[in-house]
Amino acid sequence: MSATKGGDFLNNIITIGRQFGSGGREFGRRLAEELGYEYYDKEIITELANRTELSEEYLRNVIERRPHMLYPITVGHTMSAADSYYLRRQQSIFSAQSELLKELAQKSNCVIVGRCAGYILKDFSPYRVFVYASIESRVKRCMERSSSTEGYSEKEIRKSIIEIDKHRAKYHYYHTGERWGDKNNYDLCINTTDLVIKDVVPYIAKIFI
Amino acid sequence: MSATKGGDFLNNIITIGRQFGSGGREFGRRLAEELGYEYYDKEIITELANRTELSEEYLRNVIERRPHMLYPITVGHTMSAADSYYLRRQQSIFSAQSELLKELAQKSNCVIVGRCAGYILKDFSPYRVFVYASIESRVKRCMERSSSTEGYSEKEIRKSIIEIDKHRAKYHYYHTGERWGDKNNYDLCINTTDLVIKDVVPYIAKIFI
Repeated sequence: MSATKGGDFLNNIITIGRQFGSGGREFGRRLAEELGYEYYDKEIITELANRTELSEEYLRNVIERRPHMLYPITVGHTMSAADSYYLRRQQSIFSAQSELLKELAQKSNCVIVGRCAGYILKDFSPYRVFVYASIESRVKRCMERSSSTEGYSEKEIRKSIIEIDKHRAKYHYYHTGERWGDKNNYDLCINTTDLVIKDVVPYIAKIFI
Repeated sequence: MSATKGGDFLNNIITIGRQFGSGGREFGRRLAEELGYEYYDKEIITELANRTELSEEYLRNVIERRPHMLYPITVGHTMSAADSYYLRRQQSIFSAQSELLKELAQKSNCVIVGRCAGYILKDFSPYRVFVYASIESRVKRCMERSSSTEGYSEKEIRKSIIEIDKHRAKYHYYHTGERWGDKNNYDLCINTTDLVIKDVVPYIAKIFI
């Protein structure tokens, strides 16, 4: 491939970080289809649920929704037993997820969306993509594409997008020590504000062929 | 083009910001060749020299090499007459350069390297690319490709690269108020650390066809 990451003995691993509403998932899915690679996104939660006997909903809650818990203990902050339990649970789920990602990366060429995969799989020299867009285009995308935004105002959706991304940034920093979305941690950062994703992906895919 | 920037009535303008030694110029030149677009880099200084009757060397010095002068006057900083003259000269050259860029953008499809062109030409909805790479690969690139680095140690080259980029960041911020290299001000940020530029450009070019 033109992107000379990894060695011949490794699978091609593409990781996709993405701002909420930027179309990162669509980008990843289409890229996987185009390349004939495996695609992992929600499948990771499903597999984790199978392995841990925790519900998918609970896992999603721990992994994606509770970043206000994601701070190391600092002076002046007393941790309750519940907090402490939650944090340990959080960390053990992150470890289990990391192991799963490594297994998947060893199995075949793949595209992985989210999960700090670019960091976790660094020994596999992944090609790390970050997908982002203007807040206006992300609000528009959410309103057009998701039935879950029905009944919400544009202002509410905008607030929610910003909140989710703040959470992602905190989660990412907590587990990797890296600034989420910092271009130095990616090989390609693509702004989808003015792009038709399905038209662009075939050309981006060629980088890997 | 797949990148739906600008309107049908505008030329396609691609601007390339780049870290020193990242191969941004090669990237821009090859992209222009691939697309059959005009390519402007040093040509801009040559044309400015023709228009202003200042020497190319002087212009290069003012535009690229003296960013320690590029601070607005602040309390506690007394400006000498020479400083003040230099600053006015600096600003008028920047204005002349901006006018020239707008003329070029009106003339035909083109790729423009550097010159804060992404910012200056925003009314033309340019597709803004930023090319970057790890410091190690930039040092390596400079040592391999430029005869001007002969006789310098790796450490000296590294220091010089960092210095040049600091200057670019200051120059850019002074004239645009934007953080140089901030991905939000670009449509595509491409890390050339592990890329063979000539292999990748043909695919990137297709985004614009």
